[in-house]
Amino acid sequence: EILESPEGLELGGDLREVTIMMSDIRGFTTLSEHLPPQKVVQLLNRYLGRMTEIIIEHDGTIDEFLGDAVLAVFGAPRHADDDAERAVKCAIAMQAAMEEVNQQNSADGLPELDMALALNTGTVVAGNIGSERRAKYGFVGHAMNVTSRIEDATGRKEILISESTLEKLPDHYELGDRRSLSVKGIEESVVVYQLLGASL
Amino acid sequence: EILESPEGLELGGDLREVTIMMSDIRGFTTLSEHLPPQKVVQLLNRYLGRMTEIIIEHDGTIDEFLGDAVLAVFGAPRHADDDAERAVKCAIAMQAAMEEVNQQNSADGLPELDMALALNTGTVVAGNIGSERRAKYGFVGHAMNVTSRIEDATGRKEILISESTLEKLPDHYELGDRRSLSVKGIEESVVVYQLLGASL
Repeated sequence: EILESPEGLELGGDLREVTIMMSDIRGFTTLSEHLPPQKVVQLLNRYLGRMTEIIIEHDGTIDEFLGDAVLAVFGAPRHADDDAERAVKCAIAMQAAMEEVNQQNSADGLPELDMALALNTGTVVAGNIGSERRAKYGFVGHAMNVTSRIEDATGRKEILISESTLEKLPDHYELGDRRSLSVKGIEESVVVYQLLGASL
Repeated sequence: EILESPEGLELGGDLREVTIMMSDIRGFTTLSEHLPPQKVVQLLNRYLGRMTEIIIEHDGTIDEFLGDAVLAVFGAPRHADDDAERAVKCAIAMQAAMEEVNQQNSADGLPELDMALALNTGTVVAGNIGSERRAKYGFVGHAMNVTSRIEDATGRKEILISESTLEKLPDHYELGDRRSLSVKGIEESVVVYQLLGASL
């Protein structure tokens, strides 16, 4: 496998087309201020634990946990032709798994959580970023920032995908509303679609 | 030391008053799109390497690198009475070190970088956040989100500190403009001050 895809192991900084996923729990910070701190961490870790499993099952690379947000990338360090579709399947599986997470939360007297998910596809610089004392495989590029802005625009229990992700998908995905977002630092507006599911 | 401060080692989720620092390089994403990817990573790692050293020298906890942004916390896992002041001293040292970083960049034909720094003090939930497969010592709370909004408002080569950080400092710091920011999810506006330096 190393011989077949040596580029998969070059971490010094190269351009990669990736599909970026960002998830967060709507209102989690406010919720966290009304719960004992141990419950906040319990609630967060149950959600993050389940979502991590699903992202790994779909060969996603987890870039970061930031409070209640998860940033993951599909297509680096190793590219595959179905990066965007795996990301979309992963997002659908993550939303479905929230039902189970919330059943467990209810059973434990914890509040239910609503997750929002954003997907975007673009070219980024990928590399081993940091210092000798602390480094991580990370990403830089407008496509990262755009994903974060799409996430800001995403409603409860919703999945929004950008046009650039949609273009990489086969036809059998069901879409809902089309919206146009303006993003700081980007001249053209970003077109996004609600993803409703996959048809048979 | 463990017997004297056992709370310093409890990672299961507890409330901590911390001073949060966020830094980023203005315009870095746009800049990165005009450089070869290896140069982007070289530029980023020189800056992050030097800033990491300074944060560690000031006993800060690096929470995360996110592209060109650094998120660090002073006061967790271990509290000290001078958490806010160490954060401020760290910020001043970081801005000063950018001159040296930029001299090296110029010598290598790389562009100069302008850093913006934001500091804010507040109570957050601190804990070991994530899953069995991937966990980190992380933080949740409005004070984190507020720091990010202050960072958005910070100009090139500027340090902005919130009123909550200022209240923790001795008197000999020089302040510049006072600004009032409105932050999503927070009713009251957040008052911030330009930090100009320390007087003798």
